[in-house]
Amino acid sequence: MPEISERGMQMPASPIRKLAPLSDAAKARGIKVYHLNIGQPDLPTLESALNAIRNIENKILEYSPSDGYRYYRENLINYYAKYNINLSADEIIITSGGSEAVLFAFLACLNPGDEIIIPEPAYANYMAFAVSTGAIIKTIPSFMETGFALPPIKEFEKLINSRTKGILICNPNNPTGYVYSPEEMEQIKEMVKKYNLYLFSDEVYREFIYTDIPYVSACHLKGIEENVILIDSVSKRYSECGIRIGALITKNKKVHDTVMKFCQARLSPPLIGQIAANASLDESEAYLRQNFEEYRSRRDFLIERLNRIPGVYSPMPMGAFYTLASLPVDDADEFCAWCLSDFQYEGETIFMAPASGFYVTPGLGKNEVRIAYVLNKTDLDKALTILEKALEAYPRKNNAFYVKNEHRAVYSKTDL
Amino acid sequence: MPEISERGMQMPASPIRKLAPLSDAAKARGIKVYHLNIGQPDLPTLESALNAIRNIENKILEYSPSDGYRYYRENLINYYAKYNINLSADEIIITSGGSEAVLFAFLACLNPGDEIIIPEPAYANYMAFAVSTGAIIKTIPSFMETGFALPPIKEFEKLINSRTKGILICNPNNPTGYVYSPEEMEQIKEMVKKYNLYLFSDEVYREFIYTDIPYVSACHLKGIEENVILIDSVSKRYSECGIRIGALITKNKKVHDTVMKFCQARLSPPLIGQIAANASLDESEAYLRQNFEEYRSRRDFLIERLNRIPGVYSPMPMGAFYTLASLPVDDADEFCAWCLSDFQYEGETIFMAPASGFYVTPGLGKNEVRIAYVLNKTDLDKALTILEKALEAYPRKNNAFYVKNEHRAVYSKTDL
Repeated sequence: MPEISERGMQMPASPIRKLAPLSDAAKARGIKVYHLNIGQPDLPTLESALNAIRNIENKILEYSPSDGYRYYRENLINYYAKYNINLSADEIIITSGGSEAVLFAFLACLNPGDEIIIPEPAYANYMAFAVSTGAIIKTIPSFMETGFALPPIKEFEKLINSRTKGILICNPNNPTGYVYSPEEMEQIKEMVKKYNLYLFSDEVYREFIYTDIPYVSACHLKGIEENVILIDSVSKRYSECGIRIGALITKNKKVHDTVMKFCQARLSPPLIGQIAANASLDESEAYLRQNFEEYRSRRDFLIERLNRIPGVYSPMPMGAFYTLASLPVDDADEFCAWCLSDFQYEGETIFMAPASGFYVTPGLGKNEVRIAYVLNKTDLDKALTILEKALEAYPRKNNAFYVKNEHRAVYSKTDL
Repeated sequence: MPEISERGMQMPASPIRKLAPLSDAAKARGIKVYHLNIGQPDLPTLESALNAIRNIENKILEYSPSDGYRYYRENLINYYAKYNINLSADEIIITSGGSEAVLFAFLACLNPGDEIIIPEPAYANYMAFAVSTGAIIKTIPSFMETGFALPPIKEFEKLINSRTKGILICNPNNPTGYVYSPEEMEQIKEMVKKYNLYLFSDEVYREFIYTDIPYVSACHLKGIEENVILIDSVSKRYSECGIRIGALITKNKKVHDTVMKFCQARLSPPLIGQIAANASLDESEAYLRQNFEEYRSRRDFLIERLNRIPGVYSPMPMGAFYTLASLPVDDADEFCAWCLSDFQYEGETIFMAPASGFYVTPGLGKNEVRIAYVLNKTDLDKALTILEKALEAYPRKNNAFYVKNEHRAVYSKTDL
């Protein structure tokens, strides 16, 4: 047989989905599985979006323009203006989810072998898109002790060389929930300007910021307008993951036109998704406010409850709907698998994403998990009881972590 | 500013869409434009698909599995069985259009620098996906004189070297409408087996074969089951281009599992598209028959009418809904642009795709255009009158082609 490609072999399995077969097997045994692993919002999709789909008038489900319908891009101008991001329709390209926006940004801006720097832990699929495009990701660790704040700029500078083409940030951050401060964004701006880098900024969780610190988008940074490529998606904000509508936004005309060539090759983003996403813009303020309150209240509940479990520690995430928690175990991959394959509590168990897949540096995040708070509080409560019981029953618990994490929890309570 | 990537610079502009700005400008001047350039079917989408969308019951538009819903993949088994293609649901991966299937096939099977051989003219976006993935496309010309039949295998063999990883065919062919005969498919099979190559087979026009020669899918070829990667899409068969639902099908488990890693990175194919595509399977036979008859009748009308225009020649396409025609001009790119920017007949003009973009070998197809017969016969008739008038008025007509093509027309009438 002909061989598969090297990048195919290098492609990481999704840390979020790789344990799915164990979860399926648990369900087949009649066990109820609480999904804390995946960022699939449980909150209902906005009714106006569902209605727009139910009322489609198209007789032919035709290709849309490669950069998406102009009416939708024009309506997006108002959406972004509310966040003080000033755009024209020609600076917005509609993509098949935020995923395609990342892929096309890398394809258009990076040569194979070019490097981008990303603070870790980071959304695992950035690594996958880097492998897909031959780009090299260099990471700088951020640490739970500081709530995963931006690492010092001098750490970035140590990695910058002639192959460095860009910095990638996710803000608010998946998986840590960290939101970069205005000071941190200013530091990033100076570095981007000084070294003439692209700034890829994934801001799909913009609606979910629970801190009072002012939100600074990469698009707010003065003087680097042509360096910025904004990655966006409607998936999370309107509970519309399945419609696959994202956006790549840039004021850099060359990048725009190059991305358009990749867009033309794949012809069109999804038609019905654009209809739904456009309808979501009409009346989303109350909906967004309600979802925001719900996620914030879940966050408060989750973190308080997590930090009461002996040996477990989570800093307080400032945004998105994830947290990274450390557990009193040596190997969270093993523990997460064990929860699905060997454990149940009253016929139920939990599916968490081991954090190792969010780190590039080997060994980091070994005892951490990502937890998505996309369950209602009753279910979250049950899931956390299961986590507590599972840790009690787990034969390979590590008490060193237990002590260390107790200390961390105290540290967090005074400082966050 | 940081530079764009080399592949970004190499990416070809779409030959189908690159003249769109001229078309838009013509429309802005009040001119009606007949679109012969793009394979966007004008026939209505199947009503059962539209109804399924209108009746969606989802409260949350959620991610689907990365390889698509199992119920849809299981229903597809019956669809393929009608064509004697025997599959299991685990051999089918649902993609965002056939485009994504081509991209993922190249990513999973080809290293940068690896070569695939494609008979030309060929669907232009194969070249774009090759540039995207660093693969090299080597082409072997097929010729209008033979109706674009498969070039001799010895021509392929001249190009095969240690970097050659695969052959790509499009059958029925876009842009030529050619359908490979059982003998040609047998020759391809022997070559694939002898040199241990992948066979990428794009068969999205399967429903539209107007010849009596038996249809042979790459999946019918015995002994190379693990070499074959089938590219498919519902876009054309159900007039559902906008839902972005395609498929990558392979019995090669390693390729399947590798493609799945790329699928997981982009999370999910479109949800609503899968609902529509699945509903299309329910009651599509009468619909497909009706569309088939309509396209066949348009083909007969188009080719007869084209060959009556002095200096124009088109062989009789056997499938799909395109033909390549040669025109009595030196440069069809210039002529197609001129039709949009400098010509009108009674306030109307035509938009054709210059064929040069479907060839890799420089100079080939210079006087050819691709015409898609996705207009009803009344409009096709008007469009052809405009073509005739445009050729009469065009200041840079080439009479050498005129004579040559008259000869070809005679040749075709006796042989096809």
